[in-house]
Amino acid sequence: MTVSDAEWSNTEQKVAQAAFERAYKREIDALMKQVRAQASAIAQLDDMWTLHDFLSARRHDIDGKYDYRYSVLIFVFARLVKEGWLQLDELQGLNADKLTKVAALARM
Amino acid sequence: MTVSDAEWSNTEQKVAQAAFERAYKREIDALMKQVRAQASAIAQLDDMWTLHDFLSARRHDIDGKYDYRYSVLIFVFARLVKEGWLQLDELQGLNADKLTKVAALARM
Repeated sequence: MTVSDAEWSNTEQKVAQAAFERAYKREIDALMKQVRAQASAIAQLDDMWTLHDFLSARRHDIDGKYDYRYSVLIFVFARLVKEGWLQLDELQGLNADKLTKVAALARM
Repeated sequence: MTVSDAEWSNTEQKVAQAAFERAYKREIDALMKQVRAQASAIAQLDDMWTLHDFLSARRHDIDGKYDYRYSVLIFVFARLVKEGWLQLDELQGLNADKLTKVAALARM
């Protein structure tokens, strides 16, 4: 069995969806906080374009990252764990094989 | 004499440069104020991407608008007057022909 064609039981789908949404909310909340802070400190034109560049990059990043397709979800979770938006133990309920793969990919 | 090949005396160049910089500063200051306010009100993801879209449009607009070439300056000033970033009387010192053209274009 490869990573991408793993089957997801109903229970696993529920665990996955909840974890996905939790990570997403965390990252978005952190980003909004950062943008509010960065914007409040705008004092000159360059600061504004720096904020714009930052938003462009983050938007692209987030649009690509939060891809809820079961064929890529192991990779998505590994990245979220690696980046700190998700803890491995929040994926409890997935089968051992998936957890091992997420953990291994997250260490790469 | 067409608009684009008008000669600019030294005095006119000084007047033009000062007016240009004044309008630019006004518009940038207003924009920074608006961005700070809009950013402080960010409550959800859509607000952030709305801010991003707004910054993208304004950056494109400003990059194109503030073009200090004497061949296009009459048009630049007309637009700045039309948009309220410059008053016609701040261009006093330009010759009558230029002032007439700016005023006429600004009414279009």
